Amino acid sequence: MRWRARVWVTLRAGVLDPQGAATRSALVSLGFTGVQTVRAGKFLELELVAASREEADRQVADMCRRLLANPVTEDFRYELEGCQEG
Amino acid sequence: MRWRARVWVTLRAGVLDPQGAATRSALVSLGFTGVQTVRAGKFLELELVAASREEADRQVADMCRRLLANPVTEDFRYELEGCQEG
Repeated sequence: MRWRARVWVTLRAGVLDPQGAATRSALVSLGFTGVQTVRAGKFLELELVAASREEADRQVADMCRRLLANPVTEDFRYELEGCQEG
Repeated sequence: MRWRARVWVTLRAGVLDPQGAATRSALVSLGFTGVQTVRAGKFLELELVAASREEADRQVADMCRRLLANPVTEDFRYELEGCQEG
């Protein structure tokens, strides 16, 4: 069966975020002076084939731990849903 | 008042996604052979000060159009919530 996973990878609290800081600075320069903080993260959409929801869940958690997120500096979370066979 | 915005920036359908393709290829190499597609996007969390929800909403939409998303290749969406004064 085919599954769609939505994965959020975000920097842990306390980890410096130069991309977020640069984005905030650019927004302030554009006149958005009310912007206090920006934290930059990743959002990934995956489609995968797996026999069951449990199997898909296990695989996506494993992908996050092994490749998609840096275990030292980043947290991840994901949502899983079944999708139409295409 | 202080607002938190969560912003998703994703590539439009049909736009080539080399980062997603490289991620898929790396996942397959790691043994996740069921991965069919990966699309890579950005997820940003902003805090801003604005007088009202309408004003915050208008500003975040404007930030997306002017800086956070590329209007030619990317779509954006966002959620807004009030947050505790810190």
